[in-house]
Amino acid sequence: MAENSTKGQPIRCKAAVAREPGKPLVIEEVVVAPPRDYELRIKIICTSLCYSDITFWKLKDPPACFPRIMGHEAVGIVESVGENVVDIVEGDMVVPVFLADCGDCNDCKSSQSNLCSKMPFKVSPWMPREESSRFMNLKGETLFHFLFVSSFSEYTVVDIAHVTKVDSSLPPNRACLLSCGVSTGIGAAWRAANITPGSTVAIFGLGAIGLAVAEGARFCGAAKIIAVDVNPEKFEIGKKFGITDFVNPNNTADKSVGEVINEMTDGGADYCFECVGIASLVQEAYSCCRKGWGKTIVLGVDQPDSKLSLSSIDVLCSGKTLVGSLYGGLKHKSDVPILAKLYMNKEIQLDGFVTHEMKFDEINKAFELLVEGKCLRCVLWMD
Amino acid sequence: MAENSTKGQPIRCKAAVAREPGKPLVIEEVVVAPPRDYELRIKIICTSLCYSDITFWKLKDPPACFPRIMGHEAVGIVESVGENVVDIVEGDMVVPVFLADCGDCNDCKSSQSNLCSKMPFKVSPWMPREESSRFMNLKGETLFHFLFVSSFSEYTVVDIAHVTKVDSSLPPNRACLLSCGVSTGIGAAWRAANITPGSTVAIFGLGAIGLAVAEGARFCGAAKIIAVDVNPEKFEIGKKFGITDFVNPNNTADKSVGEVINEMTDGGADYCFECVGIASLVQEAYSCCRKGWGKTIVLGVDQPDSKLSLSSIDVLCSGKTLVGSLYGGLKHKSDVPILAKLYMNKEIQLDGFVTHEMKFDEINKAFELLVEGKCLRCVLWMD
Repeated sequence: MAENSTKGQPIRCKAAVAREPGKPLVIEEVVVAPPRDYELRIKIICTSLCYSDITFWKLKDPPACFPRIMGHEAVGIVESVGENVVDIVEGDMVVPVFLADCGDCNDCKSSQSNLCSKMPFKVSPWMPREESSRFMNLKGETLFHFLFVSSFSEYTVVDIAHVTKVDSSLPPNRACLLSCGVSTGIGAAWRAANITPGSTVAIFGLGAIGLAVAEGARFCGAAKIIAVDVNPEKFEIGKKFGITDFVNPNNTADKSVGEVINEMTDGGADYCFECVGIASLVQEAYSCCRKGWGKTIVLGVDQPDSKLSLSSIDVLCSGKTLVGSLYGGLKHKSDVPILAKLYMNKEIQLDGFVTHEMKFDEINKAFELLVEGKCLRCVLWMD
Repeated sequence: MAENSTKGQPIRCKAAVAREPGKPLVIEEVVVAPPRDYELRIKIICTSLCYSDITFWKLKDPPACFPRIMGHEAVGIVESVGENVVDIVEGDMVVPVFLADCGDCNDCKSSQSNLCSKMPFKVSPWMPREESSRFMNLKGETLFHFLFVSSFSEYTVVDIAHVTKVDSSLPPNRACLLSCGVSTGIGAAWRAANITPGSTVAIFGLGAIGLAVAEGARFCGAAKIIAVDVNPEKFEIGKKFGITDFVNPNNTADKSVGEVINEMTDGGADYCFECVGIASLVQEAYSCCRKGWGKTIVLGVDQPDSKLSLSSIDVLCSGKTLVGSLYGGLKHKSDVPILAKLYMNKEIQLDGFVTHEMKFDEINKAFELLVEGKCLRCVLWMD
């Protein structure tokens, strides 16, 4: 490899900057500082859009902040590393992830948790270990980070705890999906729910996460995978990901969704996944769960002040479990390489999630497509 | 054994009849019909009082009904059996249980559920397989059943699915505790939560069920067992059952119970048990749970219309589990004999739960003691 002439130097490059809530991103020249201790600078190959980008782009109040470089689904090549970075070197292909995996705290060492205690999840404008940014524009204005990734930039700086190395043979426009949404869905079925072969599954909301739950459920050997969505077109897409049955809540005659699913599953689905982010849907999912052993897994992000309400007696007498999960319960340093291998071995599919591919400077068009619900994943290529 | 002269005949005996909500029970002569198919008639040796007896005795609206023979913690000797009763014969010592264990349905066959589908739990005035009573008074008035047990009677008729045979060497005034409350608490720690050695536990409410959870947690090898109760006297009793630490919510200075327990456990207890039956306490228990893997187990019975409300974002981001459990997740036909053996081997204690023993005709005094919170378990001897 030729000597790295940018190492230790600021890099001037293009980034898409969110300057105002809900307003088109602005492609600007930015300066990306060199990585500090425990950090690495990544040349992004491609980034995809996740619905959380939209949520925080539209949000007017904290934790929203502007100007910000959003984006948190990506893959790239390590350009340079700071001090104390082990296991990853320049030239490695890496996937950044919004959750930390420090490998060192009680949570990271436990098989039961993926919620790092040393660097806990938050929607911060800064790097995870210190309140500072690695981005500014040419006028010296600080640009804020997003979810410790900020991949809507040709270069970004990410903490070593937020990065996983992947095999460079993995196609970049598939690797980036492992950063967030698709991993979340597959992981929720595989890790958070730990679906057993032959079981029944109900999925509320067939966006990319819901479809990824279906893919994960199919991989785990679920016998029946029921989707609940108001858009009947989703059934055709869903079949590709293992959906076997479809319930349209607008079309259940005089029965509730709960009654319909209870009938279809002889008493309730073994696993119900809420993938939309509406508290009342969590309650509905809970009601569709099998008494005795049914598990409701919450994946959707609702408004910060939203409450979910369950009947005390139902909770007591049903024996059902309610559990939430970020990133599907995956521990990225160990699980993302497994998912990558499963994809390469054709045991899980990722291709079907990429409905659109564009150049980075078409990012506002990609935002529109996602807002309008017209795409699952749109991959943006930086070159 | 001498020929059974009562077999197939109605038996005239004494019972304590609840005639009006909250009014003293009336000891009356009643007639107990012979057992029909799948039923057996039991001569009660002793019965204890559980708080659910009080709840349904005080209740004015359905599922309350009068006149009723309450009581559901007991032990007795099988006087006679109906057709299709297998595995249990006249003279066996048995413990009746409010939950069915038919052994035949998907739930009873599964290790994951104790909620029989064939004979689902309900607060019914009748026998479980048909809407009829085996009790009447001397005027021919029907007396209603309670929780499929009705042990406040010298004789009762119980379905085979609601009865477990125990070793006749077990002292009756300990055996009756396995019928409900104490089993529920120990089972919740052992079966529903499946507490692992070295873990931390918080118990909300130190009644008999809370103390039994402590005993179960101690048996499972929990390292720290924290009790939360407004009555500081409970700490002394609690120590006998493995309680290591005590938090009085009225005495936490400017901190919430959640903050105190989070500090004591370095981030939250691995298992939290709500044993009172107040929805807001479930929320508090949930807040005291360790992120990532913490489990909140709901054991308390709240009002039928009560809702428990959790922050959607908390559920999503905390990775915590909420689960309800009836009878501690125990499957009585298999688990009650195990508990009985553990007691005989001195691996679990039952003795400390019995704070009072009385004659059956002092039952109203026993009710008062329990209402006033002055006893854990009061055992009533029929003879």
